[in-house]
Amino acid sequence: MQRLENIPGHETAAEVLAPYLHAQAGEFLRSLRLHREAGPDNHSTEEAARALRAAARRISATLHTFRPLLDAPWADQLRAELAWLSGTLAGEHALTARLTRLLDALHRLSGNQVPPPRGDSGSLTVGAARAGALLDRQLTLARTRAHSAALQALGSSRFHAVADAVALLASEVPLASAAAAHAAEVLAPAALDAEDRLERAVAVLPLARAARPYNAEALVQAGESQDSPWHQVRLLLRLHRYAQEVLHHGLGATVPTERLVAAGCALDRHRDAAEAASAAAAAARTPRIAPATAYALGVLHADQRHEVEAARFAFQRVWQPVAVTSAPSATTAAP
Amino acid sequence: MQRLENIPGHETAAEVLAPYLHAQAGEFLRSLRLHREAGPDNHSTEEAARALRAAARRISATLHTFRPLLDAPWADQLRAELAWLSGTLAGEHALTARLTRLLDALHRLSGNQVPPPRGDSGSLTVGAARAGALLDRQLTLARTRAHSAALQALGSSRFHAVADAVALLASEVPLASAAAAHAAEVLAPAALDAEDRLERAVAVLPLARAARPYNAEALVQAGESQDSPWHQVRLLLRLHRYAQEVLHHGLGATVPTERLVAAGCALDRHRDAAEAASAAAAAARTPRIAPATAYALGVLHADQRHEVEAARFAFQRVWQPVAVTSAPSATTAAP
Repeated sequence: MQRLENIPGHETAAEVLAPYLHAQAGEFLRSLRLHREAGPDNHSTEEAARALRAAARRISATLHTFRPLLDAPWADQLRAELAWLSGTLAGEHALTARLTRLLDALHRLSGNQVPPPRGDSGSLTVGAARAGALLDRQLTLARTRAHSAALQALGSSRFHAVADAVALLASEVPLASAAAAHAAEVLAPAALDAEDRLERAVAVLPLARAARPYNAEALVQAGESQDSPWHQVRLLLRLHRYAQEVLHHGLGATVPTERLVAAGCALDRHRDAAEAASAAAAAARTPRIAPATAYALGVLHADQRHEVEAARFAFQRVWQPVAVTSAPSATTAAP
Repeated sequence: MQRLENIPGHETAAEVLAPYLHAQAGEFLRSLRLHREAGPDNHSTEEAARALRAAARRISATLHTFRPLLDAPWADQLRAELAWLSGTLAGEHALTARLTRLLDALHRLSGNQVPPPRGDSGSLTVGAARAGALLDRQLTLARTRAHSAALQALGSSRFHAVADAVALLASEVPLASAAAAHAAEVLAPAALDAEDRLERAVAVLPLARAARPYNAEALVQAGESQDSPWHQVRLLLRLHRYAQEVLHHGLGATVPTERLVAAGCALDRHRDAAEAASAAAAAARTPRIAPATAYALGVLHADQRHEVEAARFAFQRVWQPVAVTSAPSATTAAP
């Protein structure tokens, strides 16, 4: 972990925290305006929603990590409302991405470019198209529902209350008295707490196992039930990263976050693949599907679970970048 | 590759080749006697058949690699007959091993030890038992047929002719006139040819890709059609290894073959996993199976194809044991 060598010193916590929250609130409002101005089904709508969620995540993370320096009831209330908003807005995008991921994987697995080979993979070629159609139907339906829910949310009085709260935040941050202390005394320790929580969570991950490629851990059912600690690390990593942003924002410096971003990407991929695998398994439980469809969904499920395993491997490589010892025996890589 | 530093010198090729073939022929006959003496369904029958096939492989490889030093029509004829015999005897064992591999994988994938989890993997738990029963039925039937075929072969006049030919070989090797030359001049170059054929075949394998874990190459259909170059390397590796044995047998020395054995193990695993994946795919084409069964077979197929990929990775690690560079970006390991 990069330690906070250049932590703010003479500023008060309020002098660091308030400008950051002002900036994020401004970004939230700007994205909201862009979202309203963009037409439906527009690429810029999606971009605006993404920026809106990014600002909401940063505000929410800041309210969480630096809660002792803020008006706590206000912070808790706003966080809950931002979580509701982010969740509602994220659904449609997540379902679109999941469908794309699954259809791309099916396309890759069935090798649509090449003529269907003889023998082995016949049932995959047959089933892949049907499995794709089934997933398309199920996830498009879910996406349409998520889209309606998002539209409804954006028109609700609950949403307007959140927008008003963020608009206030753009000019004024409800601080606790502790925020008058030096940033080095109260802000930096809170950020370090976030880092410690992350490191404790990473410490219990089975990284030694993840470091061995093809450990075949993620495909077994026990492996699936082990997803949550990784999802938890993904959230704690984000909190840590945004806490670093707050500190560095105070210094007007760029945050050295390549490693955190790379680790976050691996964990995003972990989450996406795990959810795609679940969607494939869920589709396989659709009544009266053809065996060839079910077979293709089984292959797809396993493929995405291997993506989960690959993402754990990638995270480990980012997090513990030690040189792999050379010339292992053949059995080292065997499961 | 270990080069042949201590190749035989003053002996003639015949003086190296004949004792090796005598020894292997003796081993063949000893195994054959053990096989006859052992009862049916006996572990020692299996052991004897394994030793018989190992001796047949070594004789056959020697006849192939050192063909210019032998009576060619005799060598070609005996090789063909040994191939027939090995193939006939190998079937039952291969089917037993394949069934064990597939049932073990299903057991691992469905996590039989743990109580069935809620959600996701329901259809796998349901289907795994049925898929296991289906594979058991199909492979046991095939194994019974292979067993009958082997029994029939062992009682045939064709087999007795092979046994007679090997019995002759135990005391006398039909040599060509070239075998009278110094071993260093004719035997070592033939062994080097075998090594060169191996190295040329390895050179066209996609080892750079295999070196990147989770390249997701083996699961796609194009990946499956790429199995044969690896199978070919497996055979050439064996020819090279046995040629080394011949040379070192002449020296009374032990062969330094750890690396060759490890590489061979990886390629055996490659072959076994590829064939198991095919068997899972074939079972999925059984008419009127339940979707849950087909789903489990799809997961199983994908699992075994990942084993194929893992075996390629293991082979590459044995063959090109260079230290992996540290700290790759997260995208390096991404497919």
